Amino acid sequence: MVVYQDIEEAYEKITRYKNPTPLQYSSTLSRMTGNQIYLKPENLQFTGSFKLGGAINTIMNLAAKQKAKGVVTFSAGNWGQAVAYAARKFNVRSVVVMPEQASPIKIEATKEYGAEVVLFGENSNEVNNKAKEIAQQEELTFLSPLEDEDLIAGHGTVGLEIMKEKPDTEVILCPVGGGAFIAGVAMAIKEKYPETKVIGVEPIKANAMWLSLQADKIVEIERADTIADGLALKRPGERPFQVIKEYVDDIILVSEEEIKEAAVFLLERAKLLVEPSGAVTVAAILTGKVSMVNQKTVAILSGGNLDLTKLTDLIHHGRLN
Amino acid sequence: MVVYQDIEEAYEKITRYKNPTPLQYSSTLSRMTGNQIYLKPENLQFTGSFKLGGAINTIMNLAAKQKAKGVVTFSAGNWGQAVAYAARKFNVRSVVVMPEQASPIKIEATKEYGAEVVLFGENSNEVNNKAKEIAQQEELTFLSPLEDEDLIAGHGTVGLEIMKEKPDTEVILCPVGGGAFIAGVAMAIKEKYPETKVIGVEPIKANAMWLSLQADKIVEIERADTIADGLALKRPGERPFQVIKEYVDDIILVSEEEIKEAAVFLLERAKLLVEPSGAVTVAAILTGKVSMVNQKTVAILSGGNLDLTKLTDLIHHGRLN
Repeated sequence: MVVYQDIEEAYEKITRYKNPTPLQYSSTLSRMTGNQIYLKPENLQFTGSFKLGGAINTIMNLAAKQKAKGVVTFSAGNWGQAVAYAARKFNVRSVVVMPEQASPIKIEATKEYGAEVVLFGENSNEVNNKAKEIAQQEELTFLSPLEDEDLIAGHGTVGLEIMKEKPDTEVILCPVGGGAFIAGVAMAIKEKYPETKVIGVEPIKANAMWLSLQADKIVEIERADTIADGLALKRPGERPFQVIKEYVDDIILVSEEEIKEAAVFLLERAKLLVEPSGAVTVAAILTGKVSMVNQKTVAILSGGNLDLTKLTDLIHHGRLN
Repeated sequence: MVVYQDIEEAYEKITRYKNPTPLQYSSTLSRMTGNQIYLKPENLQFTGSFKLGGAINTIMNLAAKQKAKGVVTFSAGNWGQAVAYAARKFNVRSVVVMPEQASPIKIEATKEYGAEVVLFGENSNEVNNKAKEIAQQEELTFLSPLEDEDLIAGHGTVGLEIMKEKPDTEVILCPVGGGAFIAGVAMAIKEKYPETKVIGVEPIKANAMWLSLQADKIVEIERADTIADGLALKRPGERPFQVIKEYVDDIILVSEEEIKEAAVFLLERAKLLVEPSGAVTVAAILTGKVSMVNQKTVAILSGGNLDLTKLTDLIHHGRLN
């Protein structure tokens, strides 16, 4: 089980390898909602998402033997880029299995950050299995994007960063996909600041975590068909679920339309390119679904990797798949 | 004449009213060019541009009588928004004269920040004269967007911020329009760090400052027809010109195509919405026009106010007027 001390240790170890992403006060959102709203722009993290923290912490904590041989994982997006970047930082070989229909720009970026990319299969089961197969064949360490303790602790450093910068934060909004991110963040907050609320935001169309919390057990959904592709998981992670049950105060659901509007708002008003998955927290604020008055609030923007062709579709209102 | 001490004083006075815009290391630009490249994201400043510093410093330094009556200025864009925001901060009435064909979104934003907007005329001469007329009629203080000393000192605080954060900066790239911004920045740098190079970047199609420096006197150009609309001045400011002659090391010219590519690059890779005027510094880096190796470099991104319809045109390569 991950504990608070793991996150403190990860913070000490990995912070020097991360881009500082200081909180940005949003005067517009604050005025609109009657709160003090700060953005935590993880879209400005190296490789364009928060996933770098988890990737660095996981790779730094490998045994020397594992590092010498290399790592393999699967990803259609941000996780692959984070692993590629982190592995190169520590001179570790990395292989990333991506689905055949993955975005050419994301494939290119993953290669550019230093990974060998293997294109295989169509869905996450197929790429997952292929990655495990390669791990065995080539004696590489398989990195889970969801269940690893070092991963959760590395992601959690974002929570520590927020509280070290602004210890009087009253509400933190965090996107929810498989759950590893918000699990780390919530643990980072609640140990020392039990009064600070940690609220997750999940797309209505990919609400596996919300359903699981309602049912008090892991629920798998049939489809997770949302433009917030980073949150499109059918099944929450087991470890994250246990942490979230204990530490997360609430989960709010947002619609596709609300997510799109939030992403366009962030571009137009905050001058930040945020991918739909990263904009769900601001969607929760703009819609008033998170009811609060005069609260010191941090909305985590989890990433900014979005093809510009999809962005223009988004701006033209709609066809982002 | 503005002196270094004015900028220090402005810094002490106005910093609490500005959004901190810490430097962002760009690993991609650094790797591409073999330098250490940092971005100074003034697009993240309140009202979306560096102009806020000059506006706040100018308004704070007005006499009580002037503050009680109010201010008037003219602007098609960022300056008007900055004045509106700064005036409201100090409970000062503000009137902004904008050309009749100004972008509806910019008109809206200027009103939203608290100004009374007067739509009048078509070119900057007409709006300028109208603003001066209103100043007389209504006993308002006319604020120059170009020549005022408090303005230049306020803009210069961006230079101080850079050196306080990263005193070993070797090269600073700054956009050049009328010259008030780079004049302030250069004076802020050169007094204490004479070895640090301050290089201006100007659009080829609006190269009045470059021509003026060549001629060693103010040169007015016939047309200033560039997508970098914030830099589209036909005639440099007199005061800025004198400062620039003394303190700026070089001015580099960039083409329309190069500016567009830089703006798209910043969006795609740095996740920042930067208007064309703000992207000229990165254009100078990407094209290799500023020749440097292994230099600690700061590229100032001066603003991020860009209609999203223009942005999609820009992404589709081209028709941004």
